[in-house]
Amino acid sequence: MPRMPLECPLPNEPDDRVLLAHGEGGGLMRRLLAEHILPRLGHDPSLPPDDAVVLPPINGLPVLTTDAFVVSPLFFPGGDIGSLAVYGTINDLAVRGAQPLWLTLSMVLEEGLPLSVLHRVLESMASAAKRCGVRIVAGDTKVVPRGSVDGLFLTTTGLGRLVDPAPTGSATIEIGDVLLVSGPVGRHGVAILVAREQMPFDPPPTSDCGPLWEATAALRTAGVRVRALRDATRGGVTAVLHEWARDCGHTLVIDEARVPVTPEVRGVCELLGFDPLAVANEGTMVAAVAAEDAEAALAALRRVPGHDAAAAIGEVRARKSIPVLKRALGREHPLVEPSGAPFPRIC
Amino acid sequence: MPRMPLECPLPNEPDDRVLLAHGEGGGLMRRLLAEHILPRLGHDPSLPPDDAVVLPPINGLPVLTTDAFVVSPLFFPGGDIGSLAVYGTINDLAVRGAQPLWLTLSMVLEEGLPLSVLHRVLESMASAAKRCGVRIVAGDTKVVPRGSVDGLFLTTTGLGRLVDPAPTGSATIEIGDVLLVSGPVGRHGVAILVAREQMPFDPPPTSDCGPLWEATAALRTAGVRVRALRDATRGGVTAVLHEWARDCGHTLVIDEARVPVTPEVRGVCELLGFDPLAVANEGTMVAAVAAEDAEAALAALRRVPGHDAAAAIGEVRARKSIPVLKRALGREHPLVEPSGAPFPRIC
Repeated sequence: MPRMPLECPLPNEPDDRVLLAHGEGGGLMRRLLAEHILPRLGHDPSLPPDDAVVLPPINGLPVLTTDAFVVSPLFFPGGDIGSLAVYGTINDLAVRGAQPLWLTLSMVLEEGLPLSVLHRVLESMASAAKRCGVRIVAGDTKVVPRGSVDGLFLTTTGLGRLVDPAPTGSATIEIGDVLLVSGPVGRHGVAILVAREQMPFDPPPTSDCGPLWEATAALRTAGVRVRALRDATRGGVTAVLHEWARDCGHTLVIDEARVPVTPEVRGVCELLGFDPLAVANEGTMVAAVAAEDAEAALAALRRVPGHDAAAAIGEVRARKSIPVLKRALGREHPLVEPSGAPFPRIC
Repeated sequence: MPRMPLECPLPNEPDDRVLLAHGEGGGLMRRLLAEHILPRLGHDPSLPPDDAVVLPPINGLPVLTTDAFVVSPLFFPGGDIGSLAVYGTINDLAVRGAQPLWLTLSMVLEEGLPLSVLHRVLESMASAAKRCGVRIVAGDTKVVPRGSVDGLFLTTTGLGRLVDPAPTGSATIEIGDVLLVSGPVGRHGVAILVAREQMPFDPPPTSDCGPLWEATAALRTAGVRVRALRDATRGGVTAVLHEWARDCGHTLVIDEARVPVTPEVRGVCELLGFDPLAVANEGTMVAAVAAEDAEAALAALRRVPGHDAAAAIGEVRARKSIPVLKRALGREHPLVEPSGAPFPRIC
């Protein structure tokens, strides 16, 4: 066996950046965890966590979800990749009828990333997690050479518990049901596009990046018969309606005039030719509820901070299983499913 | 509101590659899932899974772990990024004393990645998961523009159940305990290095990429009093010993002559000046067990396929909390903790 190698010499780098060796399981990785990561996530840095964490029993059926986040830019009006990764995963649990409990965090960092960027992202994650009462309990960090990843990618996995009554599912959507959105649509995608392309809109459009846990809990508490909930992320409201129409076999009719859109989003979309219904949201959901409960649902949603613009935007009709858009003068058109989104790397 | 956009025209690309639009939540993403991903993971493509999955109750405490995989090259002798991502996460659960039950999979794909590469990786994951009796139950796919990621990165998160008796933990390692490895060390790191640099070794060294679930179950069934188990990944056996020495406050003495090393790994390490003890493994673990149970532990491990070279390599002594290496002529040296690994992107 050869001689033991000496301590790897440090590359000739300022100490305020991520080094390749930070990702390789040695002393530098231990320091990255203890000095830069764990304290910002609320963990005791003297007790580095095991690779796997043992959790308390789950009161209810476990619900599991995962999401990768590759948004560019990392920071944008209304959020950043850290808050997006926390809320995005929490929202997937919430709309399935689950209370989010724990998150895991896997990070791929580009060599040379300023540690200050990592700090901001982690602090944002901690703050978002705290707001939702969840804890980041396990993680992993890899560092790849310059050029092998663009800055910083995250994956969060969420584990929660199913809370009764859960939505009965999009296959149970009935004729006469009412379709709601929990707020103005298209804010996230437009905010990212404007930030990335540095378009001179003043004020800059802000993302709706935020939690849906309170909103889903409010519907449950109000006793609303919820058929289906979905956070309208990639593909926007349009993608959700297409999926639900296929699942239930009915026609989902949206009244364009009733869809809430902020002036900022309307302005950018009119200028660039995008349809706000097909643009991503990151804190806004679509709900299908029993017609008799629609008013109670709107009232419950509007009491939740950030959801005061919740609106009924359409209803479910018997006919073929497609979404339909009612235009301003009352004419109805099929709502076209986009094959892809208008712009990449929005989440 | 502007006119609805028409279906996005397809980029001028052959249809055997990943497109940006495959990651954007529209019809193309639905087809990517239904035609390329779900069938290979054993899911009914006509039933695209929800973003979040409701699982059956967990019989025992839940155990959660996550890992990112950025290995280069994607395919190497003995494994690939897919099997690595499954076994890596399963092994983190197994060495914590948990039975792996479910996995989630998050993928970041580079625009232009051949779909055949994606197919091979997914088929390898399905095969590895089946071997361990686990199921990939939730996932997410993002596509980023050419140059924003190097090919394909994966994150797997594993959820399992704690099985009694679990290892009591590295802080409970006692003086007199025996240190074992479940097989020859350093195989994965050496295999990756040789494959990436296309070094002309014949036969090429193969990775130990494989599951540790059977091995950990065998120790439990044999009634071995296990203090601690750890898959010796980044940083190799050396990193594990350093962590355990800090945790228990004792001296962990390794006898170099008793450490199993394959001729292929020995040859590469002697040529390039690496220490096999500091090179990563991906299917080999270190165990600290009660001295009286060491023989039973070795016998149990050697009955598990792939672990017939399990060996006792050292023991625990009273003194300061460091690992020590006993060299061939009996002299003892402190085992130096590497600050980083000798080469990046091995997992």
